[in-house]
Amino acid sequence: MPLTTNPFEDDKFHEECGVIGIWNHQDAAALTALGLHALQHRGQEASGIVSLSAGASFHIHRGLGLVGDIFGDAKVMAGLPGRAAVGHNRYATTGETALRNVQPLYADFEFGGFAVGHNGNLTNAMMLRRALVKRGCLFQSSTDSEVFIHLIAISLYANVQDRLIDALKQVEGAYSVVALHNGALMGARDPLGVRPLVLGKLENAAGGDGWILASETCALDIVGAEFVRDIEPGELVVINDDGVTSVRPFERQRERFCIFEYIYFARPDSIMEGIGVYETRKRIGAELARESNVDADVVVPVPDSGVPAAMGYAAEAKIPFELGIIRNHYVGRTFIEPTDQIRHLGVKLKHSANRAMIEGKRVILVDDSIVRGTTSKKIVEMVRQAGAAEVHMRISSPPTTHSCFYGIDTPSRRQLLAAQHDVQEMAKLIGVDSLAFISLDGLYRALGHARRDNANPQFCDACFTGDYSIPLTDWPQEQAALAAEMAVGK
Amino acid sequence: MPLTTNPFEDDKFHEECGVIGIWNHQDAAALTALGLHALQHRGQEASGIVSLSAGASFHIHRGLGLVGDIFGDAKVMAGLPGRAAVGHNRYATTGETALRNVQPLYADFEFGGFAVGHNGNLTNAMMLRRALVKRGCLFQSSTDSEVFIHLIAISLYANVQDRLIDALKQVEGAYSVVALHNGALMGARDPLGVRPLVLGKLENAAGGDGWILASETCALDIVGAEFVRDIEPGELVVINDDGVTSVRPFERQRERFCIFEYIYFARPDSIMEGIGVYETRKRIGAELARESNVDADVVVPVPDSGVPAAMGYAAEAKIPFELGIIRNHYVGRTFIEPTDQIRHLGVKLKHSANRAMIEGKRVILVDDSIVRGTTSKKIVEMVRQAGAAEVHMRISSPPTTHSCFYGIDTPSRRQLLAAQHDVQEMAKLIGVDSLAFISLDGLYRALGHARRDNANPQFCDACFTGDYSIPLTDWPQEQAALAAEMAVGK
Amino acid sequence: MPLTTNPFEDDKFHEECGVIGIWNHQDAAALTALGLHALQHRGQEASGIVSLSAGASFHIHRGLGLVGDIFGDAKVMAGLPGRAAVGHNRYATTGETALRNVQPLYADFEFGGFAVGHNGNLTNAMMLRRALVKRGCLFQSSTDSEVFIHLIAISLYANVQDRLIDALKQVEGAYSVVALHNGALMGARDPLGVRPLVLGKLENAAGGDGWILASETCALDIVGAEFVRDIEPGELVVINDDGVTSVRPFERQRERFCIFEYIYFARPDSIMEGIGVYETRKRIGAELARESNVDADVVVPVPDSGVPAAMGYAAEAKIPFELGIIRNHYVGRTFIEPTDQIRHLGVKLKHSANRAMIEGKRVILVDDSIVRGTTSKKIVEMVRQAGAAEVHMRISSPPTTHSCFYGIDTPSRRQLLAAQHDVQEMAKLIGVDSLAFISLDGLYRALGHARRDNANPQFCDACFTGDYSIPLTDWPQEQAALAAEMAVGK
Amino acid sequence: MPLTTNPFEDDKFHEECGVIGIWNHQDAAALTALGLHALQHRGQEASGIVSLSAGASFHIHRGLGLVGDIFGDAKVMAGLPGRAAVGHNRYATTGETALRNVQPLYADFEFGGFAVGHNGNLTNAMMLRRALVKRGCLFQSSTDSEVFIHLIAISLYANVQDRLIDALKQVEGAYSVVALHNGALMGARDPLGVRPLVLGKLENAAGGDGWILASETCALDIVGAEFVRDIEPGELVVINDDGVTSVRPFERQRERFCIFEYIYFARPDSIMEGIGVYETRKRIGAELARESNVDADVVVPVPDSGVPAAMGYAAEAKIPFELGIIRNHYVGRTFIEPTDQIRHLGVKLKHSANRAMIEGKRVILVDDSIVRGTTSKKIVEMVRQAGAAEVHMRISSPPTTHSCFYGIDTPSRRQLLAAQHDVQEMAKLIGVDSLAFISLDGLYRALGHARRDNANPQFCDACFTGDYSIPLTDWPQEQAALAAEMAVGK
Repeated sequence: MPLTTNPFEDDKFHEECGVIGIWNHQDAAALTALGLHALQHRGQEASGIVSLSAGASFHIHRGLGLVGDIFGDAKVMAGLPGRAAVGHNRYATTGETALRNVQPLYADFEFGGFAVGHNGNLTNAMMLRRALVKRGCLFQSSTDSEVFIHLIAISLYANVQDRLIDALKQVEGAYSVVALHNGALMGARDPLGVRPLVLGKLENAAGGDGWILASETCALDIVGAEFVRDIEPGELVVINDDGVTSVRPFERQRERFCIFEYIYFARPDSIMEGIGVYETRKRIGAELARESNVDADVVVPVPDSGVPAAMGYAAEAKIPFELGIIRNHYVGRTFIEPTDQIRHLGVKLKHSANRAMIEGKRVILVDDSIVRGTTSKKIVEMVRQAGAAEVHMRISSPPTTHSCFYGIDTPSRRQLLAAQHDVQEMAKLIGVDSLAFISLDGLYRALGHARRDNANPQFCDACFTGDYSIPLTDWPQEQAALAAEMAVGK
Repeated sequence: MPLTTNPFEDDKFHEECGVIGIWNHQDAAALTALGLHALQHRGQEASGIVSLSAGASFHIHRGLGLVGDIFGDAKVMAGLPGRAAVGHNRYATTGETALRNVQPLYADFEFGGFAVGHNGNLTNAMMLRRALVKRGCLFQSSTDSEVFIHLIAISLYANVQDRLIDALKQVEGAYSVVALHNGALMGARDPLGVRPLVLGKLENAAGGDGWILASETCALDIVGAEFVRDIEPGELVVINDDGVTSVRPFERQRERFCIFEYIYFARPDSIMEGIGVYETRKRIGAELARESNVDADVVVPVPDSGVPAAMGYAAEAKIPFELGIIRNHYVGRTFIEPTDQIRHLGVKLKHSANRAMIEGKRVILVDDSIVRGTTSKKIVEMVRQAGAAEVHMRISSPPTTHSCFYGIDTPSRRQLLAAQHDVQEMAKLIGVDSLAFISLDGLYRALGHARRDNANPQFCDACFTGDYSIPLTDWPQEQAALAAEMAVGK
Repeated sequence: MPLTTNPFEDDKFHEECGVIGIWNHQDAAALTALGLHALQHRGQEASGIVSLSAGASFHIHRGLGLVGDIFGDAKVMAGLPGRAAVGHNRYATTGETALRNVQPLYADFEFGGFAVGHNGNLTNAMMLRRALVKRGCLFQSSTDSEVFIHLIAISLYANVQDRLIDALKQVEGAYSVVALHNGALMGARDPLGVRPLVLGKLENAAGGDGWILASETCALDIVGAEFVRDIEPGELVVINDDGVTSVRPFERQRERFCIFEYIYFARPDSIMEGIGVYETRKRIGAELARESNVDADVVVPVPDSGVPAAMGYAAEAKIPFELGIIRNHYVGRTFIEPTDQIRHLGVKLKHSANRAMIEGKRVILVDDSIVRGTTSKKIVEMVRQAGAAEVHMRISSPPTTHSCFYGIDTPSRRQLLAAQHDVQEMAKLIGVDSLAFISLDGLYRALGHARRDNANPQFCDACFTGDYSIPLTDWPQEQAALAAEMAVGK
Repeated sequence: MPLTTNPFEDDKFHEECGVIGIWNHQDAAALTALGLHALQHRGQEASGIVSLSAGASFHIHRGLGLVGDIFGDAKVMAGLPGRAAVGHNRYATTGETALRNVQPLYADFEFGGFAVGHNGNLTNAMMLRRALVKRGCLFQSSTDSEVFIHLIAISLYANVQDRLIDALKQVEGAYSVVALHNGALMGARDPLGVRPLVLGKLENAAGGDGWILASETCALDIVGAEFVRDIEPGELVVINDDGVTSVRPFERQRERFCIFEYIYFARPDSIMEGIGVYETRKRIGAELARESNVDADVVVPVPDSGVPAAMGYAAEAKIPFELGIIRNHYVGRTFIEPTDQIRHLGVKLKHSANRAMIEGKRVILVDDSIVRGTTSKKIVEMVRQAGAAEVHMRISSPPTTHSCFYGIDTPSRRQLLAAQHDVQEMAKLIGVDSLAFISLDGLYRALGHARRDNANPQFCDACFTGDYSIPLTDWPQEQAALAAEMAVGK
């Protein structure tokens, strides 16, 4: 497996979505836009808002690009009146299909308008879709969310809440959903609580409580909302002018929140399931230093995501922390097309070495993960060109050996470096003097557990373990292969 | 003076330009584009490249926007052939005029094509312009650089180098210039060396030395060039296929390099006049801690520019350094228009408090400068809302009491908070428990001097002292007012 | 009813759509684009093409604007491979909804992909839609065509042709439909044949017959196809590699082709139901002269649509035909916004008087219709300002007293001048010395009939008579009002 | 010389510019925009307006595209305040250079702002330019107009009017100029009056006379101005609040107005030098019929420019006039890229045959000119494919054997069909049964002269005769070749 040196690739897992909902606020759409801005890291390709104004009128604006570009125009915002709204950020997809897939999806039902946005992935969406098409349902998009909508449309229950529950009971997967109809804002998390969703309270000029649902607490902070609580796994909350009602369509199960949210996805200032992301990352760095420190002159984070772990590492290892790599903030989506001549210069458009902090030094690079290894290889080359005496890499996650089917954009296992090579081979391919990953138990310790409870794991960590807590119904081959692998593993 | 809370303002001085020139490289325009990308922090509004191909043909492409957007298209780059090029990044200006003002400027002279880009400001440009217009010269732009071009056009000297010298001798100001004609790439710095310009050497597939001139060393790094030396104050370098020739049109004077480049403008990985920017900022932070530390729980930088000073401060003060403020990387030029309703929420689109690091703590905020004070006030409010027990602000520059006339975009003195208020008043207006700036001598110490040599200051520090080393010919009123002020001061 | 003088309004009925389908040609999408270009007069707001390539892959490109703008890019055309395609031009609609409504609509059915475009209007679409929504069908657009698609999707018949027939039998209205699935290109006209659809044969480089369906013969001409025949009222043609099969889902009825196609909608070089449009318009002009000539110096057409009728009129009346009004060809969709100051100048952006042909003359203006009367009033003013001694207006259609519900964009009856005023009042409002319309029987004579057969009218002429041949199921109030009016009329 | 069949080429000479100026009207810029719209046929690539408001402030807006697109935005118009303005339409040029070349040009002089637009061509512009560059003048555009501006800038006369005269005396060529400075609107025509310029009077809400200068009377009509007179050859008019003053910098010469304006360039509703364009074209058609009629069934104009001549021809020849070719109005600048497959279909995107008028008939096609012959060939093919029994072509101008150097975009002589072939060969190449051009004397007769006065020709007809009335100073080779040819000719 050759490591390419395309200087533009961002070798990371990508969160696929962020969601938000507002109930009872005079600036519902504006707050939704602000919240989407705060959740921009969860999806940078497209955003949408559906607002609900008096007389059960729904208003939609969706577009491709960043939140600020799509909703930065006063005329656009004026077209989204009302006291309730739902919004959605999306990662990925191109072409004509793209705009059809931008959420929130909206449909006219018998009982009125209905808008829904979701973060995550339904693992039986394709199976359900085939059945729905057979029944005569027409699909306009390729999103999982449309399955929800059709399930609600054909449900025989009389009211929208019962129909939503009917739909939730038929889908499998990892998801957080926000939905809006004339009577209520609703939010739900999957039974295992893999994807996040939080509830906050808004002050409201007009009196009465305003409410907010969002993927992360940072969206509450930007609009000045007070954090109330995480939505619980398998919980459906129904928010209307009588307040917040909790409905539990599912039996309680042990939660398995996505552990990668702490490592990379979530914004450092968010609090997830009661645990601060920034401090967690520092603790992971400290654990990493305890497990696998090496004698060196300087600890350098790979910016920006590696910074807190590097700080924790440096403090624990008592090695100076220095910003030995500078990130160029002006790298946008469009960029200088890499010609062959330029590519061979090994040019770094996103990062540059701070030579004065590197030259002649033994450097420990701290990063959060290695996916394909392509970016890591380039950064190591750059650090060596800047004169590093030694380059050691420390990773604040265990090796990512498995793909995610629960709402994260990941390459296939063939492309995952850690699925194809052991750590020693990886070190050689990346070109470092040493390479170490935090252990699985080390990661759990940083999250406040003595160790991973292998019988009942506290988190979803399938990308490190292959331990998929939700059936991969739509991927029978992968499911079979994993079962075989697990059998061997045991 | 009311402090407004417009959440979008960036309360900083702004560098007005970056320049680059390439001689003898098969990818001259591509390297120029990459260098402009590395210099993007010196000007984000517009960029241009003029390349020179065989047969003395010049090719121009200029546009408004970021380097990546303007030069990211292979077709655009294909339209810029040749082995030599000059490029320019520009801050500011809008409308039809805007494109006319984008540099490099190009003109057809009697002796052939000529392109010039400059960083800085001519302090007698208006006076010269009036004289040139009277003589029948037609100005197409409002840039200082056009004065250069006309002076060269009407010069009676026979060759272009002598004409350029003729022009340089007539202008006053702070500038670094790169110019390209069929026979040579030229670069010059003003006699005091206020603005930076460095020389580097490029490897060249075709053999023979390639050369690069650029505002900062970070542009050399991105193209893999070897740093040769700073162009000296008052030096003109002429680069052709015989190598680099140094010409000295001016008598030697004591250099007065812009001290603010170290504090804020330059990229942290650049080396200026032999001094690394990143370490300097850390040393300034350490000096600041020695001069004015206060008992506290945490040192928090105002990102991104305050980070190195805060690291230096924290290390010296032995107070934990924490990323207590998170910067949103997705803030672009266009953004959600601030409605009144949203503005009163005190929304922070660029920064958010990392509550877990702030709540209940005594916080020392470290920033590099206070210009109008508007952003500082908002950040303090945000930190207080996140529950800080105390908020102390430490600034890694002396109070900015005077405007810059040497190429930096600064507000008038009326808008400079430090020009209107003493430190105690400023603390009150900004809302901090204490406020301190580094002393002028402290700043000089961090730069390796025992103190400021008031008789012959080692740097240009007019923005802190009003000690303008180059006459303000075009601003006679300001010049008179300053003379009066200085007389009183003595 | 004040007559406004907005100089930008185009006071015409508007055809709402043009359709085209190609079967078995190596350049299917390119021919479709060319045909859409020839049919541009039937819809200028949006166009779309769906092509079908080997392996039952469908390819879609749709956009807002003119055909040339949407399909003028080689990359776009390269994305539409295959030997079959359907295309659609559309009039009207704006905003986010707009793109969703652009046809052809496409859906994934149980049996594979299916694309459909239609010209016309279903008069029970809303009723059907309500029933379908109740059943759980989700509508993504507001077009009638989506009703077709859902009816096909939920049909219980085993094959797509039977399902299409099932759908056709449930809808009422005036329509021509082209549809494409993996096995065939299909075309259908409503039982009364109100809207046009023709069949042509294409030469094919690869051998084998190629086929084309299109709204008008001018689309056959542009691609060099040979005219075969009109699709018959109530006929469904199924075109596959075995040739063209005719299916007749409906009992034969007497045809009632839209008479307005001859007067204004169709391109003059089209042949409809065996009758050439251009000559028909000349014959109508001649009839008009016979019925209502007046002594005058010059016959002037209102360009461009009034030209053939004016030629026929002038020849019959033996009065010179002159281009006394010049049309500005550069009037696009976007134009100089009419400020109040300019509006009061009575400025004519689309037309200008050819003063030399007008001044001092008695002028007969020939136009094809008067809808609101606004444009007519302005043109008369302009002609008077140019010095006409007398202005007489002759109209090559009877007074348009009723709205069209069969696929033509018409204002409500309140806005139809002829529905609110008698001819004498109209003459006064428009400002002419005399005004005359062709009689209904005169119009029928020009079309080759002795007179209108009131028992079994040969054409649909509801806009002149209120004799609506297809029930207005979705407009019960209008239906009732018309019934009352008819009762009175008798 | 192969005749290509690119379906997109427009085989016509192209007028290169239209100019307009307004003095003393509250809507000066809006009237200018309307006038430019009426003059759109004289230049469709770019337009600009410079307005002058109180306090001698000048406002500029220029853009690429149609007038309606550039000035259709109320914000744009609001940015052009004031009671005086000049405007310009331009044909041709692309790329970055394009916008620099859009007129009116504007410059800041010692005495204030100055804007100038011109229609035509200076035949010694390159010579003057070289001299000006040598003197130190910097050129920013490649337009002739910039020569004017520099000549004015360096003139030693004290006032702007004398400077303009000084400049006019140094230039040679065919031109109409409008210029605006703080004290006056000025207009001038070259000494031979080759290019047109007319004066009109505007009513003015505020009282006092308003004035308009424009290339054609159609621009007066659109704004409701009263025609006053043509500016005379060699006349300079100075319009200020005291009225219109005529200045005569040049000795009187015999006028030689461009004869092609009557044949093709001017709008049919314009009156030029007292002669109506539309009637002239009809008279030319009648002369043509008298000279070279042939037995036929139908006279068909090549739309749109051939229509009046065809009407005149048909009336004289007593053969029916029919619209046998339909022009597609939706052909814009961007269009379906001609692929090879489509090109071989001989597709006609701009024109289509009206088969019913053509089939089986002997057709006389009337067009205004043949330049390269490419379009003529295609049209003949199309008419033959539509079933014409015979095709005869009659051209309402003499053969165009020479290029224009006086402001018209023409191909080089190598590409002029009539410069390379005699009429019989041309007929064969174009594929017609017969071909005839109007004789030179026939053309002069249609313009009211007994014949061409070869000693003192009444018009500039160099494109037909090679009799260039103004020296071709910048084209010495062409001048010499023509002299040789003329010598032989005699």
